[in-house]
Amino acid sequence: MQTNLPLNFKDKLDQFTEQWSPKVIAEMNDYQFKLAKLQGEFVWHNHPETDETFIVLHGKMTILFRDNSIDLNAGEMFVVPKGVEHKPVAKQECHILLVEPRGVTNTGQTSSNLTAENDIWI
Amino acid sequence: MQTNLPLNFKDKLDQFTEQWSPKVIAEMNDYQFKLAKLQGEFVWHNHPETDETFIVLHGKMTILFRDNSIDLNAGEMFVVPKGVEHKPVAKQECHILLVEPRGVTNTGQTSSNLTAENDIWI
Repeated sequence: MQTNLPLNFKDKLDQFTEQWSPKVIAEMNDYQFKLAKLQGEFVWHNHPETDETFIVLHGKMTILFRDNSIDLNAGEMFVVPKGVEHKPVAKQECHILLVEPRGVTNTGQTSSNLTAENDIWI
Repeated sequence: MQTNLPLNFKDKLDQFTEQWSPKVIAEMNDYQFKLAKLQGEFVWHNHPETDETFIVLHGKMTILFRDNSIDLNAGEMFVVPKGVEHKPVAKQECHILLVEPRGVTNTGQTSSNLTAENDIWI
């Protein structure tokens, strides 16, 4: 549901506790902005059809790649290129804003018990 | 230029002083992430072909519409729908992250001395 109100990240983050379960807060054309809470280790996966943007709002996370890794702190972002295998991890709970096309599943081509229902709005 | 390093908003913002002159820091598919510093009043304009996303990083701004307005503080975002006339204003300098398709001009269909050169990367 699109609104005419400012979208406040903290207010929206307060509305859910689930980890690894992105919630849509806005759409821009056919792209979505999703908030997510991460802690622990995600699964290796990739998105063959699209880049994926991670913006860290609170805490810190690491994105593992097969041959290196990148540490992201609050106030930092990174775009994972399409098709590149990656695995997000976070020791402490980390809050992020994801930007990607509508319809992207969090685990990409990988089937996992961490695969979240898609297109859940808050 | 896309990098394999985390993009730190503060570090990037420290690299320029111009106001109303968005600088590209990353691309996701055919979309761009741009940092901008705003102060004063922009011009009325619209983008007939695309929505435009404002994310406030520091300070506060207001987006005026023909029939209402929206106040945005740090940690808040808003998506201006395509074709909707709007005028960003900020009393004090405000730092924002814009997300929109590659090729969008800051003043949209309006010709102005505030029209900035496009696709400037930092």
